[in-house]
Amino acid sequence: MGKYMDVHRGMQGITADQLMEAHQADLAIEKEENVHFERAWADPESGIVYCLSEAPSAEAVQRIHERTGHKADEIHSVPLSV
Amino acid sequence: MGKYMDVHRGMQGITADQLMEAHQADLAIEKEENVHFERAWADPESGIVYCLSEAPSAEAVQRIHERTGHKADEIHSVPLSV
Repeated sequence: MGKYMDVHRGMQGITADQLMEAHQADLAIEKEENVHFERAWADPESGIVYCLSEAPSAEAVQRIHERTGHKADEIHSVPLSV
Repeated sequence: MGKYMDVHRGMQGITADQLMEAHQADLAIEKEENVHFERAWADPESGIVYCLSEAPSAEAVQRIHERTGHKADEIHSVPLSV
């Protein structure tokens, strides 16, 4: 298991409700891949969304995001944190 | 005050100690700009570092990072979070 930060682009205009809905959709099925989405942050102006997760692999993170309709543009393992 | 996510690139090979040192350097002077750096995550392989902060502006975040020798490549306001 490791920490991952994934990035979604092109989400201009995303609302707080839409961010919550997307996050809830991920949470609803994340256990099927042993992923846990911990936090997400969005900038409606630039359209960037960051998601922090704990997961067995980047591929597992992507499978959840794909099934809930929001494939990530980048997924980075972030083994170091403070 | 708002939340900001900033991104540093080209940090390939960064170690846990280097990440902690950089974070401590920011913490040591952050109050001069009313910034607080909450968390940071690093991927030594791709060289990306993400920092989450609370600050009055992106410019305030950048002034602290510049003074401690690690200017951010991108700074995004992230008014939405879950």
